Amino acid sequence: MKVLITTVPFGDKNRLPLDTLEEAGVEYLINPTGKKLTEDQLADMVTDFDIIIAGTEPITEYVMSRAENLKMISRVGIGLDSVDLLAAEKRGIKVSYTPDAPSPAVSELTIGMIITLLRSVHLSNMQMHKGMWNRYFGKRISNTTIGIIGLGRIGMKVLNQISAFGTPRLLVNDLNYNHDLSHIPNIDIVSKEKIYKEADVISLHLPLTATTKNMICRKELEMMKSDSSIINTSRGGIINEKDLFDVMKKGHLSGAAIDVFDNEPYSGDLLEIERCLLTAHMGSMSIDCRTQMEIEATEEAMRFIAGKPLEGEVPDEEYAVQREGL
Amino acid sequence: MKVLITTVPFGDKNRLPLDTLEEAGVEYLINPTGKKLTEDQLADMVTDFDIIIAGTEPITEYVMSRAENLKMISRVGIGLDSVDLLAAEKRGIKVSYTPDAPSPAVSELTIGMIITLLRSVHLSNMQMHKGMWNRYFGKRISNTTIGIIGLGRIGMKVLNQISAFGTPRLLVNDLNYNHDLSHIPNIDIVSKEKIYKEADVISLHLPLTATTKNMICRKELEMMKSDSSIINTSRGGIINEKDLFDVMKKGHLSGAAIDVFDNEPYSGDLLEIERCLLTAHMGSMSIDCRTQMEIEATEEAMRFIAGKPLEGEVPDEEYAVQREGL
Repeated sequence: MKVLITTVPFGDKNRLPLDTLEEAGVEYLINPTGKKLTEDQLADMVTDFDIIIAGTEPITEYVMSRAENLKMISRVGIGLDSVDLLAAEKRGIKVSYTPDAPSPAVSELTIGMIITLLRSVHLSNMQMHKGMWNRYFGKRISNTTIGIIGLGRIGMKVLNQISAFGTPRLLVNDLNYNHDLSHIPNIDIVSKEKIYKEADVISLHLPLTATTKNMICRKELEMMKSDSSIINTSRGGIINEKDLFDVMKKGHLSGAAIDVFDNEPYSGDLLEIERCLLTAHMGSMSIDCRTQMEIEATEEAMRFIAGKPLEGEVPDEEYAVQREGL
Repeated sequence: MKVLITTVPFGDKNRLPLDTLEEAGVEYLINPTGKKLTEDQLADMVTDFDIIIAGTEPITEYVMSRAENLKMISRVGIGLDSVDLLAAEKRGIKVSYTPDAPSPAVSELTIGMIITLLRSVHLSNMQMHKGMWNRYFGKRISNTTIGIIGLGRIGMKVLNQISAFGTPRLLVNDLNYNHDLSHIPNIDIVSKEKIYKEADVISLHLPLTATTKNMICRKELEMMKSDSSIINTSRGGIINEKDLFDVMKKGHLSGAAIDVFDNEPYSGDLLEIERCLLTAHMGSMSIDCRTQMEIEATEEAMRFIAGKPLEGEVPDEEYAVQREGL
């Protein structure tokens, strides 16, 4: 079996996943471009591989049509918006993922971003480096209203960690409420509209689906308080980038922190906005979480090769999301 | 009695302190320069005032010699390095401060800076705004060794909040250990040298005294691991700025976060260092803490005017620090 590893970096900080493949005599290729592949690049590269250990590059019907031997996709990470699950199902291609491993890294980064935005740390830093000294007033977490949209693995971790900073007013929204929220003080389940209107900081922890794509456009951004801010560490496309640029350009919102983009590497208009904190899709990029994701995805591929039962197969709900356009 | 308010901004976000003075018919002047006063500016301005509600400007023997009516200094904040306590004592000038009020704001900012440095958020942001996309690997708090030097009000709050992120290895150092550390897992009391050599992030929570001035120079910085970082939200002068610039310029340290400087507003060499996060002395600048500090300092001045017992008088230990050059 031949394995194509498309996500980069891979095996950089911990060689264990590569050692695992090598010891088992599995032939592999790591994406030689060093960058996220386009659909065409992937289609050209994938032709005779049996397994993809995948990042967030588009694994579409077209890509699969060019990959005659493809039998399994093992996603390093959680989001499945990049994989056409229905096309995979039709062709009998198994899809697994590592949904738990990224959560601690993404949630900790989010907490850092909440504090950074509340205190205008990024803005002061930008200005200091240009020789400007402005002392910004800020807020502490416990004096703010924090809105969390999406209470999956990451949203719940963010909620739990925030509580350590006192008891902010927490407004939350999700499609379902499977989690026990009873241990979290000061929390209200409310509509998204109420979160837009009342939160000082909004953080999104959602998958990219037909429902969440462009969920936050000009209208939603304009509902937000002029001195509030928004964080997206989940998926590009949920906040409309052009609308975010337009409203911030006009002076609306005190800040934003955007880690994920429609097209990555990102080089769009938000670069102009000093109070927009931009990071290069680094949510899961802590050495320990990244290593965990790579090991889990590799072990899953090895189980597939050995004909053993898979442990990280994507559940039916994820197929339903794509089938029903949710 | 006439009150000179030197710290700016003052009464900006909450007018209560100014209302208090006005309702009591107390005449006051707010520092009209809008900036931190120099020794000479303060000496020229202070001549006929009875009370200073003070920031961090130098209240020296010389300033006091020009302030014949001065009877009381009410510091908005905690540090006393800017006040010549022995000169004040000799002249019978009372000195009060608000040591508790800034702690929550400083410690929360510090946590944000720890996460920012561990994940290179500030560096990615700087580079993104220049059109560069670099995905930095980082660490989570729970996988690191964190060194805290200074276990006063702020250092202890930082320790307690860090513990919410799991259990990092904590190395701490202080002159005395008055606090109960038994509830904090994974903590070791060690020498400063051990902290320099072993910590991934070092945070300083110290007053500026004869002992702590230039405590961290080239030698100490060079002891630190090349991929470690250092935070100073306490007082400028504890880390030697020139030495920090020199070692970082050569590529040593993965980052630094500096909120306090020898001379403020700061515009020195560190502006050149992209991975040095710079903020404009904003540690206590959360609206709630700043308001609390201003109210406490004003109420103390009002108690003095009314001949009531003071509640925030600077304790003997602080005089001893200056007397003994500790």
